[in-house]
Amino acid sequence: MLISPTNKPQIFITMGDPSGIGPEVIAKSMASPALKGLAVFIVFGDMDVMARAAETFGRGSFRLRKLENTESQADPDEEAVNIIDPGPPLANSRYGQPTRGGAEKTLSCLDAAVDIMRRSSAETPKALVTAPVNKEKIAEIHPGFVGHTEHLQKAYGSALVTMVLVGETLRVVPVTRHIPLREVASALSVDLIADTLEQVASNRRMITGGEDAKIAVAALNPHCGEGGKIGTEEIDVIAPAVERARKFYENIEGPVSADVVFYKALQKKVDIVVSMYHDQGLSPFKMVDFDNGVNMTLGLGHVRTSPDHGTAFDIAGKDQASSSSMEQAIRLAVRAISTA
Amino acid sequence: MLISPTNKPQIFITMGDPSGIGPEVIAKSMASPALKGLAVFIVFGDMDVMARAAETFGRGSFRLRKLENTESQADPDEEAVNIIDPGPPLANSRYGQPTRGGAEKTLSCLDAAVDIMRRSSAETPKALVTAPVNKEKIAEIHPGFVGHTEHLQKAYGSALVTMVLVGETLRVVPVTRHIPLREVASALSVDLIADTLEQVASNRRMITGGEDAKIAVAALNPHCGEGGKIGTEEIDVIAPAVERARKFYENIEGPVSADVVFYKALQKKVDIVVSMYHDQGLSPFKMVDFDNGVNMTLGLGHVRTSPDHGTAFDIAGKDQASSSSMEQAIRLAVRAISTA
Repeated sequence: MLISPTNKPQIFITMGDPSGIGPEVIAKSMASPALKGLAVFIVFGDMDVMARAAETFGRGSFRLRKLENTESQADPDEEAVNIIDPGPPLANSRYGQPTRGGAEKTLSCLDAAVDIMRRSSAETPKALVTAPVNKEKIAEIHPGFVGHTEHLQKAYGSALVTMVLVGETLRVVPVTRHIPLREVASALSVDLIADTLEQVASNRRMITGGEDAKIAVAALNPHCGEGGKIGTEEIDVIAPAVERARKFYENIEGPVSADVVFYKALQKKVDIVVSMYHDQGLSPFKMVDFDNGVNMTLGLGHVRTSPDHGTAFDIAGKDQASSSSMEQAIRLAVRAISTA
Repeated sequence: MLISPTNKPQIFITMGDPSGIGPEVIAKSMASPALKGLAVFIVFGDMDVMARAAETFGRGSFRLRKLENTESQADPDEEAVNIIDPGPPLANSRYGQPTRGGAEKTLSCLDAAVDIMRRSSAETPKALVTAPVNKEKIAEIHPGFVGHTEHLQKAYGSALVTMVLVGETLRVVPVTRHIPLREVASALSVDLIADTLEQVASNRRMITGGEDAKIAVAALNPHCGEGGKIGTEEIDVIAPAVERARKFYENIEGPVSADVVFYKALQKKVDIVVSMYHDQGLSPFKMVDFDNGVNMTLGLGHVRTSPDHGTAFDIAGKDQASSSSMEQAIRLAVRAISTA
């Protein structure tokens, strides 16, 4: 099912929260001449919401085609933007006013996309691009929801997923993600770090677009632990993990002091920085790539990207949202497919 | 004692490790036309080491004057660079080859400077500028030595000292410093953060050179703890500390997500960022101010600054070391005196 007439990659896009800027940035991206023809686009969203967004922000440059029966051999239309609406229709969705119903539709669109991607043929190259969701509202109906990455990990039954932030200037990979800082040191293990490094190394061409990549691993403690005087995780955990991963891929350096490794990355002496925790990677990243970051998830069997911004309810529907990050997420997904 | 004929500020400079680049960058700074006449300079160092550095790197632009008896009313010479050598002379000091004797002399120069500063009249404005030391070698003769900041805190009997990194682009203050990351969360308290904020606020003009300063406080956990879902320190510790400190100085904001606050600082929406731990502040700082950072210590009764580089034994004596950071440290010390 969902077999493209040609062998063009399929980009599955989820709408995200209908009251946020998701539908708007998707419509603007679909209207972007730079993306035309790059892939077959299939949006999982509410038909009415997407039709409104297409009308307001699509500038008449594309048509929507609803795929009525996703179980059939329905071929997506390469010339149109294909919509799959898992139903039921969302009533009275308003920009800037998130609702429980909107969160339910957000989640059902995401789950429909995952379901179809998991069951579809491996022959057609594909990737998932997700628009931003309202985590709090989704958590009300789906307790424990903390974000796309973790939700997809469960849905795909993946042993390890890795979050990669890809920007124009930096590329960073936090080994641990949305956990309290006081739990970080205990959450690190040789296996977790080494497995992450190997997943990053395996996907380095997706991440950098280049053939090779210098990967550097940040230390956990100040001054790289100063030989064990300020913490022992560099000696006990990080160095052994790097040693193990280097047998798989040699071009890995570390641990390197956190206050040196990002400077080296800025100087292009390092291509990908693997950080031990969320803010260690994200703070430097957002300094230089605040507006042009793309979030990439590895370990799902196909790549998933998303713009590195939130629902932005305050500006939704006002034609103030830039689709630049969404367009980059789509471009990166296409590139990832071609280098996979 | 050490009363300048005029009311010029006195800048006390410690030599640092004699085998490192300390003597070289001091001599180059003393030769800098930009610093001439800004202050009365008194260097605590080995006479032979400083004479050699002055000869090699001073370019004949200043003379050294040894103050023989620091207990007398010896007036420092405003036209010369004054040297106080606590003795005994250091034999056979070689660049690039740190020795135990060199470490002993480093420490005795530092302690002599502290001793004289603590006992000298409050009338003459003064500040301390320290050249880099070899922490490992000093720790061999003085167990527990982890760095200038902590050593000076003990020597001055200060209840709280605060380390400030002052760069051209950013100014950051880590609340905790050289401790393992796993101990950071437990080391934070409302009092420590609030006291640090008040010390920073009291010295904001020293730090920024301006009248007012917007101070922002970084969160500890990812996404600022997401309302307690990813850690509770924002709610239990940081927010109450900010609330307390705002009664002392209003222009304090926080906690702000770490991956947002440094971006805001880069955009000049924040003047000083107070971070919860070493790398949280130092990693962003070194990205943009790697080569021009100055370390400042508050809480000693007078300001202390130092260049933000190490002993650099590998290039010592080779005329490769830049005195730019040392010169900035001296300039910042002079500015701190004038705004104190």
